[in-house]
Amino acid sequence: MVKRISVVENIFSANDRLAAENRAMLDQNGVFSLNLMASPGAGKTSLIEHTVTSLAGLFQLAVIDGDIATSLDADRAAAAGAVAIQINTGGDCHLDAVMLNQALVKLNMENIDLLIVENVGNLICPASFQLGTHKNVLIASIPEGDDKPYKYPSMYKGVDALVINKIDLLPYVDFNMNYFREGINILNPAVEIFPLSCRSHEGLDAWLNWIQNIIQPQEQPD
Amino acid sequence: MVKRISVVENIFSANDRLAAENRAMLDQNGVFSLNLMASPGAGKTSLIEHTVTSLAGLFQLAVIDGDIATSLDADRAAAAGAVAIQINTGGDCHLDAVMLNQALVKLNMENIDLLIVENVGNLICPASFQLGTHKNVLIASIPEGDDKPYKYPSMYKGVDALVINKIDLLPYVDFNMNYFREGINILNPAVEIFPLSCRSHEGLDAWLNWIQNIIQPQEQPD
Repeated sequence: MVKRISVVENIFSANDRLAAENRAMLDQNGVFSLNLMASPGAGKTSLIEHTVTSLAGLFQLAVIDGDIATSLDADRAAAAGAVAIQINTGGDCHLDAVMLNQALVKLNMENIDLLIVENVGNLICPASFQLGTHKNVLIASIPEGDDKPYKYPSMYKGVDALVINKIDLLPYVDFNMNYFREGINILNPAVEIFPLSCRSHEGLDAWLNWIQNIIQPQEQPD
Repeated sequence: MVKRISVVENIFSANDRLAAENRAMLDQNGVFSLNLMASPGAGKTSLIEHTVTSLAGLFQLAVIDGDIATSLDADRAAAAGAVAIQINTGGDCHLDAVMLNQALVKLNMENIDLLIVENVGNLICPASFQLGTHKNVLIASIPEGDDKPYKYPSMYKGVDALVINKIDLLPYVDFNMNYFREGINILNPAVEIFPLSCRSHEGLDAWLNWIQNIIQPQEQPD
């Protein structure tokens, strides 16, 4: 058992070292970066599409897509107007700092203002691997249910922002927003919360404003 | 690299050996068993509640609930009328044959006809760990999106039955059933498919009939 724990600790510490290197590379190039995490189907790619389409006139955007198979998500990000790089994890259930590093070296970062990293669809494993990105963002979605903060506490604890997607489905599912928010408040009272719908576009402006206010744009648009 | 592969192979082979032991224990006791897998929030616990409530008059049911935290799901299964055992994986993203074995020895299997194992909410890792159960069942859900078979092929390939839950939400989301079914047909043409809604109860009968027809009941109900 001692051996196993020590191996696991070494993996995390090696990952954290490389995450720090990734952060340094991003900072040197003036790239602000988001690590977007969620369950399968919560709306990561849809939110990226809207974000890229809305901010493409203001910033140069890049998307790095982690998936266990296919390039469907990277194709959608590219179609929306971002520089898109696909990472196929070959079955791995999360991105780690090594995978992000391999993608970053392919990216011409000098020209990029905002990098969105789309993690693998999974509410558990990605929470354990820092990538070196500036902000961790979780997308919850209404049909997933209001008990998710209680059942996946590590994920909810470790994020800087929480998007609550698919609020247009609230009338059609049993979702107690107070119960959901109580769970968040216990785990992560300082998290920024953005209820929105990628389908109806309600609430998207607050999310986009948050990103714009964080990025220090190198050139102010007229 | 060779070393790493050999460690991984040893883990899977040890797991498979214990899965075979689990299966033998279940068979000796005449317990038919399902391994229920899905994304977070697809409806595993809701389907278990309906299944337990509907079949409790015909069979003795037990539920083993795998979760990374809380006993919320086991509580719901027990409230519905099953013998319920909780496994908290302590952060692990899937159940394995060892964890199931530890739960099985706590169960008085002589009295049980049907055991439902609720795996951890995750579309990736549970696909790699056989538990020894008789049938693997995946619950997809409509709001997760129609691209999931393409993006999570290992999970869709390895299951005997597929429940498509939340069909009551079809009018409110963009979901192309033909595209979804094409993906399933490529990966797993023989899978049994049950479109249903735990909320509206539509389609539940076909699912319940499938279970009843598979179990060889020790005593026929009058």
